[in-house]
Amino acid sequence: MQRESLEFLFHPESVAVVGASADPNSYGYDYLKHLIDYGFPGKVYPINIRRAEVLGLKAYTTLDEVPGRVDYVIGCIALTQVPALLEACARKGTKAVHIFSALGSETGLPEGRALEGEILKKAREYGLRLLGPNCLGIYCPGAKLSFGFDFPNEAGGIGALVQSGGSAIDLVQYGALSGLRFSKVISYGNALDINEGELLEYLAADPPTRVILAFIEGLRVDGREFLELLRRAARAKPVIICKGGRSRAGARCTLSHTASLAGSSGIWDTAIRQAGGIPVRDIDDLVEMAVAFSLLAPIRGRRIGTGGAGGGRNTVSVDEWEENGFEVTALPEVIREDFRKRGSRLWYCLGNPADRSIATAFPGDAFTVPALLMEMAKSDSYDFICANMAGDEHPHSLENYRRVMEEHVDGYIKLYKESPKPFFLIFNSRPLGIKEMDGWRWREIARLRTRLLGAGVPFFPSVDKAAKAINELIAYYRWRDEAD
Amino acid sequence: MQRESLEFLFHPESVAVVGASADPNSYGYDYLKHLIDYGFPGKVYPINIRRAEVLGLKAYTTLDEVPGRVDYVIGCIALTQVPALLEACARKGTKAVHIFSALGSETGLPEGRALEGEILKKAREYGLRLLGPNCLGIYCPGAKLSFGFDFPNEAGGIGALVQSGGSAIDLVQYGALSGLRFSKVISYGNALDINEGELLEYLAADPPTRVILAFIEGLRVDGREFLELLRRAARAKPVIICKGGRSRAGARCTLSHTASLAGSSGIWDTAIRQAGGIPVRDIDDLVEMAVAFSLLAPIRGRRIGTGGAGGGRNTVSVDEWEENGFEVTALPEVIREDFRKRGSRLWYCLGNPADRSIATAFPGDAFTVPALLMEMAKSDSYDFICANMAGDEHPHSLENYRRVMEEHVDGYIKLYKESPKPFFLIFNSRPLGIKEMDGWRWREIARLRTRLLGAGVPFFPSVDKAAKAINELIAYYRWRDEAD
Repeated sequence: MQRESLEFLFHPESVAVVGASADPNSYGYDYLKHLIDYGFPGKVYPINIRRAEVLGLKAYTTLDEVPGRVDYVIGCIALTQVPALLEACARKGTKAVHIFSALGSETGLPEGRALEGEILKKAREYGLRLLGPNCLGIYCPGAKLSFGFDFPNEAGGIGALVQSGGSAIDLVQYGALSGLRFSKVISYGNALDINEGELLEYLAADPPTRVILAFIEGLRVDGREFLELLRRAARAKPVIICKGGRSRAGARCTLSHTASLAGSSGIWDTAIRQAGGIPVRDIDDLVEMAVAFSLLAPIRGRRIGTGGAGGGRNTVSVDEWEENGFEVTALPEVIREDFRKRGSRLWYCLGNPADRSIATAFPGDAFTVPALLMEMAKSDSYDFICANMAGDEHPHSLENYRRVMEEHVDGYIKLYKESPKPFFLIFNSRPLGIKEMDGWRWREIARLRTRLLGAGVPFFPSVDKAAKAINELIAYYRWRDEAD
Repeated sequence: MQRESLEFLFHPESVAVVGASADPNSYGYDYLKHLIDYGFPGKVYPINIRRAEVLGLKAYTTLDEVPGRVDYVIGCIALTQVPALLEACARKGTKAVHIFSALGSETGLPEGRALEGEILKKAREYGLRLLGPNCLGIYCPGAKLSFGFDFPNEAGGIGALVQSGGSAIDLVQYGALSGLRFSKVISYGNALDINEGELLEYLAADPPTRVILAFIEGLRVDGREFLELLRRAARAKPVIICKGGRSRAGARCTLSHTASLAGSSGIWDTAIRQAGGIPVRDIDDLVEMAVAFSLLAPIRGRRIGTGGAGGGRNTVSVDEWEENGFEVTALPEVIREDFRKRGSRLWYCLGNPADRSIATAFPGDAFTVPALLMEMAKSDSYDFICANMAGDEHPHSLENYRRVMEEHVDGYIKLYKESPKPFFLIFNSRPLGIKEMDGWRWREIARLRTRLLGAGVPFFPSVDKAAKAINELIAYYRWRDEAD
């Protein structure tokens, strides 16, 4: 019953934007524009008190004037006007309302709390489901609903509940740049009605959602109840949780941000972990964990075969893998021997990591980093394979750089497709200034990144971040195997 | 005496590139091109056995044919030809030779070791100073010498000795993108003659060098001697050291990369720290520490005033500051009161962090993030100030985004210039694909980054990285104060 009432958030047949606006610097404009731009297939009704038309669509003065049914209402009006809006929704038979408007209980003022009380009372009375207030709402690419203008059109397997709006944008943006695609992202703000518990339960049972991410500032449901919901969800799929407001200062924040009472750091981590969830520290972690859990096959051991470009980078990378508890197993002699037979002039100095820098003197040698990594992937000595890519080559010229890098990228894509072991890249990103955005080296790196992403190859920004994610991946599958 | 002999590396009056080439995909081309492109003011002599001219310059068949003196020789020829080159250098009165060529002792083969032995013997015999082999050599912008084609022309206060060539490129590139400028960067490879000890001593006494960075795979000088040199250097200026090959696998690597015998992880860190150095884990750390030590004034306490855009981001950022041992001091009532007097409608909900998201409903309010951070900077309650910037805003349109962000960037530049406390930014970077390189949001972010860099504002990619650097900054000045 509960579950069914949430479906109108994700699959409405008709949507009204109340407070739809022709001012391109307003949310009332954005929400309407998103419905148009993403190609929402149902009916769309702009509600604007002064205009007969908004963004080329016929507008209505009030919700009551809309001729047909309105399943879902997006409210971009002052919070003080929301009680009246809910009355109109009730008359219209609306099922779900997203209240974008802020300045409710998070202000800390009694009038904010009182207003939210009135809104909740009306929603309950009319059987309306409320998302918000103080939130961005729904991104559901399958249903062509979005709260961001540059989000992917394609749907995927990541479902996320994110209490903060800005963090929801960050999650989708950084996620998209890391190869993630989403089933549903719900920015749920003050959680007056629909809260983290219900959303977690919904996503746990939602077939397209394979990995659940959560950014929670404060629980609305009882802690024990939440952990029980988490335990059930985590048995079904990985649930990765960033709890904001773990610190004293953070707790002060969440109160004024989404009116949330927060708990303390260590307690949260322990409780989440005991319930089978994976606690992380920020949005970056959520994205990087999601890359590991959605783009990599299960990894069940810590023996890594690695390599790539840059002798110094390789050295430091294996230092960091070992420091994170992984084993950089020495190259089996049989692999070296194999390269000797293939005529490699470098066979005697091959190792783990596979170091591209030794090959520069011997173009055309049978040894290449992807070729050696492929042999490691086939060997029983390794559990997974990771290559280092970076923009710090000495490329001579665009043509040379492109030729060398393209060969490697071809090899990595082949590795990803054919490797019997999970394969991923460490792909370093650098903070570019405006001049570098047009520099051929950086554009070439961006082009290669897009090519790798298009082929589905997972990557992480650093060894430490990859190691953190792989450690969690190993721990989760161990926990689930034991729980089974 | 030693010191003087190194000066020819950094300030030669005439340079010959032996193995100068017209093939743009060769190092013999690159080194010559760099001398031309960076505007090396002295004499430049290409040596090429077959060509009368290379890159528009008259070329000579051998070094002996060069009419004038040759202070410094860059050797881009096979290592086996280096002994004969040194003989020619001796005849010519050359003082210093950089041997780019690899395939010496790092191959692990007896012939490589023997060849290096012969080279060293000749160099000693002729009183030649050798840099390398197996290294990229010198980047000294003040002298217009470079081993990279897109390095900054301006000189600065960072001196670096980097055993690995690729890591040296990475260091300069990432450093430049982070606002660093260099006095000298020396990629010194196999360190047959000039080694880490001498370079550290040189940079410690080098007036333009204010901060020393080192990436060392293996020591050539005795460990105790190195630590004594480090102790002396660290009294003069901060010395930040990444030791590559800390792990078992890393030690295997360094042997084949720069023929270095490495030590174990914990021992290194402890020894470096006891000598007053700052041990770090990779090139990224080196750059981020250098930002803290060169662009920030000394920080002597852990009380942070912070804020920025995104309620969720602010919350998590203060969690992370506290988790790293910092104190996010609550906002003094007197500051809140001050904003009330200035007519702010938001005065009652101001806090630390300063949260921009509460201001969106009140354009023109006296409260802005930079305004509140400035008050924190003036208050006795804070030791330093940090603002969060990110690309995850909901910007509506380029015009709106530009207006809002420009206001903030203006405010941050003013803060940086006028704040009585050290001020820096957390500026999140995202890994862009080729499509995003032309997207207005990302280009606008890059433009803002360039503007902030141009104004000298320091920034870090994440709270964890900033916190790590600030912790080291505090510890270093405490150590030096106690040592004085």
